[in-house]
Amino acid sequence: MQVARVIGHAVSTVKHFSLTGWKLLLVQPLHAGGELDGDPLLAIDGVGAGPSDRVMITSDGASARAMVKERKSPVRWAVIGIIDSVPKA
Amino acid sequence: MQVARVIGHAVSTVKHFSLTGWKLLLVQPLHAGGELDGDPLLAIDGVGAGPSDRVMITSDGASARAMVKERKSPVRWAVIGIIDSVPKA
Amino acid sequence: MQVARVIGHAVSTVKHFSLTGWKLLLVQPLHAGGELDGDPLLAIDGVGAGPSDRVMITSDGASARAMVKERKSPVRWAVIGIIDSVPKA
Amino acid sequence: MQVARVIGHAVSTVKHFSLTGWKLLLVQPLHAGGELDGDPLLAIDGVGAGPSDRVMITSDGASARAMVKERKSPVRWAVIGIIDSVPKA
Amino acid sequence: MQVARVIGHAVSTVKHFSLTGWKLLLVQPLHAGGELDGDPLLAIDGVGAGPSDRVMITSDGASARAMVKERKSPVRWAVIGIIDSVPKA
Repeated sequence: MQVARVIGHAVSTVKHFSLTGWKLLLVQPLHAGGELDGDPLLAIDGVGAGPSDRVMITSDGASARAMVKERKSPVRWAVIGIIDSVPKA
Repeated sequence: MQVARVIGHAVSTVKHFSLTGWKLLLVQPLHAGGELDGDPLLAIDGVGAGPSDRVMITSDGASARAMVKERKSPVRWAVIGIIDSVPKA
Repeated sequence: MQVARVIGHAVSTVKHFSLTGWKLLLVQPLHAGGELDGDPLLAIDGVGAGPSDRVMITSDGASARAMVKERKSPVRWAVIGIIDSVPKA
Repeated sequence: MQVARVIGHAVSTVKHFSLTGWKLLLVQPLHAGGELDGDPLLAIDGVGAGPSDRVMITSDGASARAMVKERKSPVRWAVIGIIDSVPKA
Repeated sequence: MQVARVIGHAVSTVKHFSLTGWKLLLVQPLHAGGELDGDPLLAIDGVGAGPSDRVMITSDGASARAMVKERKSPVRWAVIGIIDSVPKA
């Protein structure tokens, strides 16, 4: 799992049917140093995250398919948590 | 999933039988900053994408094998959506 | 598996139910040269690691789901060992 | 899947038994810009590719295990096509 | 699969029970240009590799779990061959 920030979303009319009704958030992972400069990813939203929210993302085909309730969906990335804070050790 | 652009396609005579009849699009992922400079990937086309289209790509063996209807296909990457726009947060 | 150091943890109220009760450690992988500068990852803690501990991390959906005892959990990264030393060859 | 070029092969006497009889090609993926400078990978050859051939490679455990006909083989990367040309969009 | 060199090993007292009795080799993958500068990885040793050996490594959860004979092990990386030579094409 990674820490990322919601930077936008994708609008797509022609797409795999299993993605219908899911918001596709554009998220940018946190890289070393704390800056947000990772390559953007598209993730379905499982927690109701909003613009600029700091979120937890994951890449797991099996659980993502369970979320969209479609056994053969090509979905992999999902937002699975909203992060309140990240205290350093 | 990632945002990518269709930059070409691959012509291959000798290939795994499960790829016969599938267009192999050469796509280039979107990197941080918005420029299209990710390493090119070959993906089967599940949505009828055309040259220069902005698309959604995914890497998922299970669903890709379902697309080509061949349980032991080595295919992994697929184009699963055409992107109309990406509004920023 | 990779060598990483515990550099913090994430506090998240809204999250996938399977993550409830698990500490989410922020860990930074060891890169070439020995310096700790990999991109930070969030991992569930399976061994009771503490702040600044050097740990072994892994990315495996099947075993991570077994750890949280929830077949459809989106969890992937886990801390699976505390490293005492790394003698060079 | 990715476009790569065959740059050599590996000779290995002591290895997992499931790899016996398979040619292990050293291939170098194509990176952005068209130059061949990706990190080299070892892949079993499923199509009879020769030195300097431009090929299609994939990373998929399930199909690679099917190719070597050994359910528990650790093989993942395979050459699954010889590329004739890559017309740009 | 990748070519890597054995550069050390990890000593870990507190770890997932499935790793007990397995040597955890610290290996460094070969990058483009031939130099050994990839990020170090921890891999279980399935072939009896020694310090400084050039080896073949793989990342495959299913086969690694078969090696340690524990269906829910979090192990993923394994050394699966000792490389004698890598003739260039």
